[in-house]
Amino acid sequence: MAPMERPGEHVDDLMFKGLRIIQSRTGFRYGMDAVLLAGFARPRGAGVLDLGTGTGIVALLLAGINEAAHITALEIQPEMADMARRSVRLNHLERRIDVLCADLRAHKELLQAGQYDVVVCNPPYTRADEGSASPTKSQAMARHEHSCTLDDVAQAGYYALKYGGYMALIIRAQRTVDLLETLRRHKIEPKRARLVCPRRASPPNLLLVEGIKHGKPGLLWEPPLVVFGDDGRYTPELRAIYHMEEDDGG
Amino acid sequence: MAPMERPGEHVDDLMFKGLRIIQSRTGFRYGMDAVLLAGFARPRGAGVLDLGTGTGIVALLLAGINEAAHITALEIQPEMADMARRSVRLNHLERRIDVLCADLRAHKELLQAGQYDVVVCNPPYTRADEGSASPTKSQAMARHEHSCTLDDVAQAGYYALKYGGYMALIIRAQRTVDLLETLRRHKIEPKRARLVCPRRASPPNLLLVEGIKHGKPGLLWEPPLVVFGDDGRYTPELRAIYHMEEDDGG
Repeated sequence: MAPMERPGEHVDDLMFKGLRIIQSRTGFRYGMDAVLLAGFARPRGAGVLDLGTGTGIVALLLAGINEAAHITALEIQPEMADMARRSVRLNHLERRIDVLCADLRAHKELLQAGQYDVVVCNPPYTRADEGSASPTKSQAMARHEHSCTLDDVAQAGYYALKYGGYMALIIRAQRTVDLLETLRRHKIEPKRARLVCPRRASPPNLLLVEGIKHGKPGLLWEPPLVVFGDDGRYTPELRAIYHMEEDDGG
Repeated sequence: MAPMERPGEHVDDLMFKGLRIIQSRTGFRYGMDAVLLAGFARPRGAGVLDLGTGTGIVALLLAGINEAAHITALEIQPEMADMARRSVRLNHLERRIDVLCADLRAHKELLQAGQYDVVVCNPPYTRADEGSASPTKSQAMARHEHSCTLDDVAQAGYYALKYGGYMALIIRAQRTVDLLETLRRHKIEPKRARLVCPRRASPPNLLLVEGIKHGKPGLLWEPPLVVFGDDGRYTPELRAIYHMEEDDGG
């Protein structure tokens, strides 16, 4: 069989249940945010929707975490959707992950309403009106709100979720108000949240949030997640999220 | 001179700049939240407004922290306002703290618009529609939204603040969305926030937020504040907020 990856691409081992992913060597590559989101999302319910899957990283990890899940993964950029689809084939997950190359703003034409247990999204971090330009178009689309806003994401999530279904997102901590306010406005009430701090005494830089469709107000904060310990290595909790063995050496 | 305190009251030493406070022995007594709020609020600007001062604790602490401040302190309950006023006299701060017995919802009749640099509020923690009844009426009014909601507080703050002025609040962490969303809706954009964790690995239970009138979106999270160290004593940072000497013995 010919290799799945194309010139300029590389197959990376996710070090988890034998999963592998195809990524560009120079374009958009998945980051810790995707792994944190997969670890934070509720691993329950068979119907999972990933809004803006990019390389497919979150969908692949969720397929590994929740072996009962069937995942629909939307990606607007054709070259990224193609790469994600090849990663799905590489992992023999064609029956469990569908990659749709589509704009999530067209959710009403694409998806059935109220069918999903869990929706995940690692949305563009930066408001369309701020931030410096990313070096490649695929990076720019993944990082800036060119192709969708938080409003678009929440609207699609609300449409797709079952009553009481969960939506999990990760965002830069400075956009906390944008995200919480947007979710509430779209009737996906933020119920569980967690700040991520690079080090124990450093300012949090990422926020994980889980909302429940038609949930009641009341947010449970989990203890802050610290990435690096005082010894400069990943903390045990972060290693557990990455499914690293204790003796991996960090 | 006759003692300032009345039967059933006690004078407590704030252990900071010689300040003392009169409190009921059995009714509402100030808690750590008040001290955290005073430590978090920006100690700048001469015009300070304390919405719902209760015993006067935050106003007294702010008078000690910022010696240039003139503080207007509103309190709706006559017996609490009287107690706060007596604490002001006890500390010879009559020229720097005015206690008004008034409903903050009447802010337009009470206060000049756009005159304050800093507004602080330790609002009722519990939504009017939830929580168990407090044992006394003064406790109930201080803890539940019987006399004002977050909306009332934000409206009064917006009215009173100068353009670019700061509003600082503390609330139970589970009301994070209520507070952030309310402030933004009233054009007091949350700009700085901090979660308070009882212990390093425990879920945060309090949230400190500072908003800026007409500020731009973008929230800076400070590192989480941990109350108790692994040794069971207050952490050095908490001790600093309480202005405790290192050799106080915790």
